[in-house]
Amino acid sequence: MSTEPTQPETATPTTPAAAAAAGTRLDPWFGSYSARTRGMKASEIRALFAVANRPEVVSLAGGMPNIADLPMEDYADAVADLLRSQGTRALQYGSGQGDPVLREQITEIMALEGINAHPDDVVVTTGSQQALDLVSRIFLDPGDVLVAEAPSYVGALGVFRSYEAEVVHAPMDAHGLVPEELDRVLTELAARGKRAKFLYTVPNFHNPGGVTLSLERRPRVIEVARRHGVLILEDNPYGLLGFEGEPLPALASMAPEDVIYLGSFSKTFAPGYRVGWALAPHAVREKLVLASESAILCPSNAAQLAISTYLSQFDWQAQVKEYRRMYAERRDAMVGALAEYLPTCSWTVPEGGFYVWVRLPEGLDAREMLPRAVTALVAYVPGTAFYADGSGSEYLRLSYCYPTPERIVEGVRRLAGVLNAEAELVGLFGTGGTSRRTSVDGPSPDVS
Amino acid sequence: MSTEPTQPETATPTTPAAAAAAGTRLDPWFGSYSARTRGMKASEIRALFAVANRPEVVSLAGGMPNIADLPMEDYADAVADLLRSQGTRALQYGSGQGDPVLREQITEIMALEGINAHPDDVVVTTGSQQALDLVSRIFLDPGDVLVAEAPSYVGALGVFRSYEAEVVHAPMDAHGLVPEELDRVLTELAARGKRAKFLYTVPNFHNPGGVTLSLERRPRVIEVARRHGVLILEDNPYGLLGFEGEPLPALASMAPEDVIYLGSFSKTFAPGYRVGWALAPHAVREKLVLASESAILCPSNAAQLAISTYLSQFDWQAQVKEYRRMYAERRDAMVGALAEYLPTCSWTVPEGGFYVWVRLPEGLDAREMLPRAVTALVAYVPGTAFYADGSGSEYLRLSYCYPTPERIVEGVRRLAGVLNAEAELVGLFGTGGTSRRTSVDGPSPDVS
Repeated sequence: MSTEPTQPETATPTTPAAAAAAGTRLDPWFGSYSARTRGMKASEIRALFAVANRPEVVSLAGGMPNIADLPMEDYADAVADLLRSQGTRALQYGSGQGDPVLREQITEIMALEGINAHPDDVVVTTGSQQALDLVSRIFLDPGDVLVAEAPSYVGALGVFRSYEAEVVHAPMDAHGLVPEELDRVLTELAARGKRAKFLYTVPNFHNPGGVTLSLERRPRVIEVARRHGVLILEDNPYGLLGFEGEPLPALASMAPEDVIYLGSFSKTFAPGYRVGWALAPHAVREKLVLASESAILCPSNAAQLAISTYLSQFDWQAQVKEYRRMYAERRDAMVGALAEYLPTCSWTVPEGGFYVWVRLPEGLDAREMLPRAVTALVAYVPGTAFYADGSGSEYLRLSYCYPTPERIVEGVRRLAGVLNAEAELVGLFGTGGTSRRTSVDGPSPDVS
Repeated sequence: MSTEPTQPETATPTTPAAAAAAGTRLDPWFGSYSARTRGMKASEIRALFAVANRPEVVSLAGGMPNIADLPMEDYADAVADLLRSQGTRALQYGSGQGDPVLREQITEIMALEGINAHPDDVVVTTGSQQALDLVSRIFLDPGDVLVAEAPSYVGALGVFRSYEAEVVHAPMDAHGLVPEELDRVLTELAARGKRAKFLYTVPNFHNPGGVTLSLERRPRVIEVARRHGVLILEDNPYGLLGFEGEPLPALASMAPEDVIYLGSFSKTFAPGYRVGWALAPHAVREKLVLASESAILCPSNAAQLAISTYLSQFDWQAQVKEYRRMYAERRDAMVGALAEYLPTCSWTVPEGGFYVWVRLPEGLDAREMLPRAVTALVAYVPGTAFYADGSGSEYLRLSYCYPTPERIVEGVRRLAGVLNAEAELVGLFGTGGTSRRTSVDGPSPDVS
């Protein structure tokens, strides 16, 4: 994995020769980059994560789904049959919008969350990350504002930054985004003469917050957004991975003309084909297709047909039930270990998805603590990764999706050791992250 | 496929309500789009091509490779074995830069064109279209200038337009880009106070020009670019598809610090996995990886491992030889038919690749003629698609990659009927495209 070049990124000499003369000879093209590139940074924790991938480290950092239980033997046969019967189609260019049969199947999946969509309003993308990129591309000019929950998915914040947009956070609590707070944030923006281009929200089993937007609040969030003329970008990779009860109705099911909905096969099947989708109001969908054709010509036919085959020939809903059972067990392991080993912290208890959001005791800083955690063979993501403004140092995200329950417990135990040593230091010397406690409120920890 | 919404794209009301009031009620989010989206247009010939895809039409328009002769049975078995033995890796997230084994294999492929590259300087992309997008993303600010051959690949022009860049064309002749003309164009830019961010060039079997940059000119093009401080973007999907002799050395083999080289499996194997790559100077490669992670997180592991399997378990170079033989036969069919049926036109005779570039006789306009051609059941791409400035109407691109030799001959015969009827009209009424004959010179037709 790469790290950031070390030359200063201030001067912008206009020729390679001038760049070299200015001491940036490590990169002769340094003076040629676009403004958006000058704001592009490798994560500061990236080098650390290269270490964290060593097998002796318990990583509670990643968001990799556990796909070990997929029926791989049978699936291999099905893919081989696909190539034998439709190989020249699977290996050829396809439609920019995506395979029509897969788009039809996608509408059936979305129906499970109450969405009544037409396949013509679906665009297949290279994972839902590409959908985030395309939506940003068609809506965001440099300096534009959007509203996102506090905290928000780190990958979305990176996309918004790459389009040089300003992210304003709106607080969540244990029931998700707070409509009154959203109203306040949008009103304050209006007072500054700004209208947010969209609201970015992960309503179900929030990454990283671990909370879910309550059914009661959903129409209220829509009402607030609509009153302010703000489009909603509903990112929903985890919606079918609730541990109990039925999926909540998507925002897109309640306000199809006001919502761009993003879905993905990465968590309900597997991420390796990089297939996700966007459902959008018709005119927006047209723009998304044009933007996608410019970006990649067309999504992979081979990937789409392989997923379409999985959906039609396997009991994918039974597999999702199995995933739910497995992830619920891991959630229980993590929450149990937190109660046992980290009584001085507070945390959210997710009803689905992959993540627990932990608040550290007063005085501790998750980012400063990370190198010591990795030394103690446990990794997490510091809360700062999930705020656009550098706040969030009193939080950390723990994921329970990939390690076994035993490893999760061991990871939390190791984390407790680091935390206790850290707390002792703070007690002795009074150092720590207290001065940084200025984050927009994350989900309330009182649900723990 | 989509068509462009019909509302005017001039006013930009600031709220959905205002947009509706302004008569744009077809799209409530019309006022929210970014500047780059307002410049985004569906091709005017798109609707026509939907018709041209009917089986009774001979399409000489598309660039789809003919992959019917791939060893599909054996390949299906190999992919099934891959899923059985490495399924949980193939279906999992991967590295943002791309699979290390595939990157090693890619360096071996590039060695065939004299490139001595390290796998660490290779980035795997979602087809080389994504590489074009990423390079544009990291280098182009709105208003920036780049130089591209006249004519240039339509998909690249679309990307450059989406980044709001200005394309300045530099003339080609039968031996490819003319170094003296490139020097003149860059000198004129300098006089305007502009430095081109890069030179976009397709040196081998040009799309759409059908010509190849001569060996003698290659160091001269590099010298000119270097003297003006201009990076070279070498797009080379067809380099291994020459009909005779050995591949020419890539520009990247002669000036690795001055060139970003783009490669693709779409033409040497198959396009359906959407796997291409960029080789870039190290510091640029770092930016490309960060940009790609923002755009798609990571390329598809399943696609990369499937291609890696093909490269290691099949005699892919023998398959490329077979492709060459097949495409040479089709080139011969097309050139023979042109000589027989279209003696009033002139054309390039490609030594590889997929395309012939045809110049119409005085007075004819390829864009105006296209609907009549489709009615006569033959399709092509008008030259205007390959110029950023709307010129090129006296040219058209014919591709011989996908139809059989018999269909190619029949297509050219039909085209001749359209052309003769058109020429008669021009003779009778004096209408036609003469007033548009202001294109920057395309490849000289004197090689025909």
